[in-house]
Amino acid sequence: MRHEGPQGRGRGPGLVLGIDGGGSGLRAVVAAVGGGPALATAKAGAANVRSVPEPVLTERLARVVGRVLPPGRPADVVSVVAGFAGAGVPGRAGDGGQRLAVRALRAALARHGCAPAHLRVAADSEIAFAAAPGCPPDGLAVIAGTGAAATRMRGHRLAATADGCGWLTGDDGSGFWIAREGVRRALRAVDGRGPATLLAPRLAEAFGAPADDPASVRFALVDGALAPADPLRLARHCPLVVRAAADGDAVAGRILDEAADLLAESTAALRPRPGEPLVTVGGLLGPRGPLLDRFTDRVRGWGLAPYPVRDGLHGAVALARAACAGAAGRG
Amino acid sequence: MRHEGPQGRGRGPGLVLGIDGGGSGLRAVVAAVGGGPALATAKAGAANVRSVPEPVLTERLARVVGRVLPPGRPADVVSVVAGFAGAGVPGRAGDGGQRLAVRALRAALARHGCAPAHLRVAADSEIAFAAAPGCPPDGLAVIAGTGAAATRMRGHRLAATADGCGWLTGDDGSGFWIAREGVRRALRAVDGRGPATLLAPRLAEAFGAPADDPASVRFALVDGALAPADPLRLARHCPLVVRAAADGDAVAGRILDEAADLLAESTAALRPRPGEPLVTVGGLLGPRGPLLDRFTDRVRGWGLAPYPVRDGLHGAVALARAACAGAAGRG
Repeated sequence: MRHEGPQGRGRGPGLVLGIDGGGSGLRAVVAAVGGGPALATAKAGAANVRSVPEPVLTERLARVVGRVLPPGRPADVVSVVAGFAGAGVPGRAGDGGQRLAVRALRAALARHGCAPAHLRVAADSEIAFAAAPGCPPDGLAVIAGTGAAATRMRGHRLAATADGCGWLTGDDGSGFWIAREGVRRALRAVDGRGPATLLAPRLAEAFGAPADDPASVRFALVDGALAPADPLRLARHCPLVVRAAADGDAVAGRILDEAADLLAESTAALRPRPGEPLVTVGGLLGPRGPLLDRFTDRVRGWGLAPYPVRDGLHGAVALARAACAGAAGRG
Repeated sequence: MRHEGPQGRGRGPGLVLGIDGGGSGLRAVVAAVGGGPALATAKAGAANVRSVPEPVLTERLARVVGRVLPPGRPADVVSVVAGFAGAGVPGRAGDGGQRLAVRALRAALARHGCAPAHLRVAADSEIAFAAAPGCPPDGLAVIAGTGAAATRMRGHRLAATADGCGWLTGDDGSGFWIAREGVRRALRAVDGRGPATLLAPRLAEAFGAPADDPASVRFALVDGALAPADPLRLARHCPLVVRAAADGDAVAGRILDEAADLLAESTAALRPRPGEPLVTVGGLLGPRGPLLDRFTDRVRGWGLAPYPVRDGLHGAVALARAACAGAAGRG
């Protein structure tokens, strides 16, 4: 079956392009508009629209698009959806990140001769949610990686956000939050404000200090946490807290319990309806994520069953396909 | 009465010099070694030994010493005690800050011809504690300003510290902590995770945003808190939380209650003994400090009665005098 796409310009079967521009890396996938598995995937470096300069982002997008595009078929690409962390979040006045991403994406596609009829830059939560079975228009997506936010979708679009307020005054229950609480409670143990925990010697060691002397543990923890110019780098120590909890450390276990409570609170703020779709994504709530079971326990009572996804790539493809179906339906 | 001082080099009555090098400013006072009120006081700019370069610190110290020293009497200065935030804190490996402060202080004194027999650079908590009536050798000092720490003194020296771990992973109950919680709970109110609070419109206004639209309030709070390169600048908004609590805002009142709980916890970690001296200092726990009543309520049950002091200047003088008495006693 040949598929002409919304504008009918392609000479081969219509193709859709999905892009996931997470802070940890840029991934692209190409697939047939009518369905079926991915035809090609590729990845490149970080794609945070707030920190990667536009020329670099354009270059990286052009590279991944070039790798997944079947030779000689640029005109067959009828629909492109790209999700970027932070793009399209309500309350982000001006949304400069989204405009930048649209420009970079159009330029990258043009280099390969692509001018798709449908092009959309979406929020990372929008493409993650679209990976839910059947690509439903309405429901919830909860992201918990380095940062954390609960989001509500209406008509495939982000309609409301709870938290996602950044490491200093929000992102409650995120990887950064867990790592910071790990250091905080290790310090409380060291100076007698809190119960003993494996986190004190283990974090001190991770920060490069001998763990045998309380004074140097204290020094290592305070300065180790504050040393990097970017406090977000502290989030790299989240897995250490997860391992300590798995090894039976009660303090570390409580941190993970509280993180799950906070993520459930953010979800509750969006007034969930029993049975509505709930997608979870990110290092903590993706498939086999260390908070997935705890979070599932907490939202089960509200009639919610999390559907964890690894990333937003398949959701981006689903949205790109849905746009074609919508165009066909309207046409 | 003429006082020769420990080395008997002075030709006039012996003088002591007390210096308080807080992060907010450098103050100096000169007084007679035998007792009585201050003869002269002076102040200059910030004196944080970890951020002010040594030549600048030396210059500022020389300036305040020059202003308080009676003309023609450099040799009468027999004892000098200077307290600096962070100097002499156990666990601060290397104590580079203390050595720097000693060098800067000696150089500043030498410029005016002073070479006192006794010179000591102390921690800010050590000079604050020495302001207690009778300059007792043992007891507790709790500091709560931009940062927060509880300390135990033995023989006029810092013997143990609880908290004081810095804004990122400690300083629980400090001015920074209160301001951060203020922004955090304002954000929770805005997106439905927490109860409504005056803090949301007031903080948004303080950050320069119109307070009428939830999306722009949210944006203003997140970016306003994160915008300064130094997150500690957020502590400047602590008084706004204090005012909201005074105006009856329940969320702001709870933040202050929790701050007092945390400061009491830090105090409890030092195992207070009923009736022992407890000095409190800093913007939150000094005379008329906004947490003083709440903190007093919490420690009363342990047989403690806080003695709030405005700064460590008089304690520095008391320590400088005690050193002379000690030398005389030993001689």
